[in-house]
Amino acid sequence: MTKFTRRTMLVGTAAAAAAAANPRLIVAPARAATPTAGKQAPGFYRYKVGSYEITVVTDGARSFPLPDTFVTNVKKDDVNAALEAAHLPRDTMTLVFNPIVVNTGSKLVAIDTGYGAAEAKPNTTHGQYQQNLAAAGIDAKAIDTVIISHYHPDHVNGLLGADDKPAFPNAEILVPAAEHKFWMDDGEMSRASPGRMQGLFKDNRRVMSGEILKRTATYEWGTEIAPGITSVSTPGHTPGHTSYVIASGSARLFVFSDVTNRPELFVRNPGWHAFFDQIPDMAEATRRKVLDMLITDKMLVQTFHAPFPALGHMEKDGQSYRFVPAPWSPAV
Amino acid sequence: MTKFTRRTMLVGTAAAAAAAANPRLIVAPARAATPTAGKQAPGFYRYKVGSYEITVVTDGARSFPLPDTFVTNVKKDDVNAALEAAHLPRDTMTLVFNPIVVNTGSKLVAIDTGYGAAEAKPNTTHGQYQQNLAAAGIDAKAIDTVIISHYHPDHVNGLLGADDKPAFPNAEILVPAAEHKFWMDDGEMSRASPGRMQGLFKDNRRVMSGEILKRTATYEWGTEIAPGITSVSTPGHTPGHTSYVIASGSARLFVFSDVTNRPELFVRNPGWHAFFDQIPDMAEATRRKVLDMLITDKMLVQTFHAPFPALGHMEKDGQSYRFVPAPWSPAV
Repeated sequence: MTKFTRRTMLVGTAAAAAAAANPRLIVAPARAATPTAGKQAPGFYRYKVGSYEITVVTDGARSFPLPDTFVTNVKKDDVNAALEAAHLPRDTMTLVFNPIVVNTGSKLVAIDTGYGAAEAKPNTTHGQYQQNLAAAGIDAKAIDTVIISHYHPDHVNGLLGADDKPAFPNAEILVPAAEHKFWMDDGEMSRASPGRMQGLFKDNRRVMSGEILKRTATYEWGTEIAPGITSVSTPGHTPGHTSYVIASGSARLFVFSDVTNRPELFVRNPGWHAFFDQIPDMAEATRRKVLDMLITDKMLVQTFHAPFPALGHMEKDGQSYRFVPAPWSPAV
Repeated sequence: MTKFTRRTMLVGTAAAAAAAANPRLIVAPARAATPTAGKQAPGFYRYKVGSYEITVVTDGARSFPLPDTFVTNVKKDDVNAALEAAHLPRDTMTLVFNPIVVNTGSKLVAIDTGYGAAEAKPNTTHGQYQQNLAAAGIDAKAIDTVIISHYHPDHVNGLLGADDKPAFPNAEILVPAAEHKFWMDDGEMSRASPGRMQGLFKDNRRVMSGEILKRTATYEWGTEIAPGITSVSTPGHTPGHTSYVIASGSARLFVFSDVTNRPELFVRNPGWHAFFDQIPDMAEATRRKVLDMLITDKMLVQTFHAPFPALGHMEKDGQSYRFVPAPWSPAV
């Protein structure tokens, strides 16, 4: 690396003889070094499903030291080995958040919201949904419908802006009936373990109140809840956890929601139970069923917790599975 | 999909009793449907290697019907099977182009240039380098050095702007000595087959003339040609084809150039010979050597022809190899 630089000046080949070959390197004009930018490109990505235009709007990423029980049914060493095999750092967990906006031509529909503006702080790299939405040229006031997949903070908290007012002031909000029932049930809340689960109940009741609740309607599974957008029953991660099929013309997209968290861990190892999975065995059964369906149908899948833009295909690899990101396209 | 929408209105659970549950869905104010954007996010991506800031600046993508001889030593059916296995469309080849800019703190160094502005037309999705460079906030006038890996049009033509003037008006241009010698040699040109190879000679002599040639110096392999940037001998794709190691502190990045074209074909099948490989057996030997080195050293690799941002790791998979994209990060 420290070898001395040797540069051989061009001396003009026969072919280039007409061009005056310079005997010395051009001395670039004295300029100050260009400062580094230190800022990532805006976090949105567009693609079509039939005539529908999808915009992935990332909420960013959140890193923390890998908890001992991040995967509840295997050892931390196994998780670290999977991280290392995926070329990711050991002992750190980085979660990423990728909600989408669907323009059906008649309606502008957001599916999930990210943590929202309240978490956008100088020292965080999540809570970026609203700024990326704006970068994508989408006015939050133009969103007609917000569909919620389940009541975890990275999906629902963005319903509220930094000012605690509705972040999508003109939108109706559609939520899974089973999910809403669970979190609003006082009996369930009283039986919830202290700490994280109690906190989730409190957070969901904070969000699902006032103006937000007034704008909210529930939906059932197996129903076309917005034009071309059908709810799919995928419980386990939470009791009412929901995925979607988006269909336009002959094109179809599966919106995965949290059938798995990071694919490097949970698509590779569908039998692993994430700390976040509230009903682990049901979540695993759902996971295996959905992965097999996606592979059989060779279906394009928009995940929430794969690296941005989180779009791709699932494939089988022996007893395991793999998420293969779709290639980025410069054209929409 | 055509099932009638059933929505069950919230009726206010005990917990939510205080909040007035709305008996009807909010009727969204009458608004025109939001038009689709039809435009992709800007094509740049930033990351750090030690204290260096790298910006991937894509030149876009170019699609064409899959030629019968795109891979010269296997059947078109095999190529189609590999495309299908990678979830890519059959019978179409899409090439993508991902040059980088390195800010070393003291110098702003571009490695390769894309096709350049002359190819940026309303009906193309390549030739986007200059517009993505501008989107990244980088002034082409601030580039101190342009390093060229080899003399193919997707790497060198962008040295010229749409006006045929230097696109990087203040930059010195560093080119591989062996590469320059080959393309400027009249004997080599006279022996080149008509069609593509003759065309490449003509194109290279068009670009490597006048003001560009005056600003150009050649470099040898195994040399630190700019701060922390060392040229690596990787011939075969062309006689003087060059890769790089970028080192800053203890961090290292391998800049792959065209050791392979699309990884879905040529990393998966390192024995396949791309139509573009001028010395196919040498290109294959280089390819296998570089892939094994990257895997042994677990080295981060910036490729040119993988999907944007074309950054990731190589891994072994039986007798084959695989490119694993690095996760997008919202932080630089």
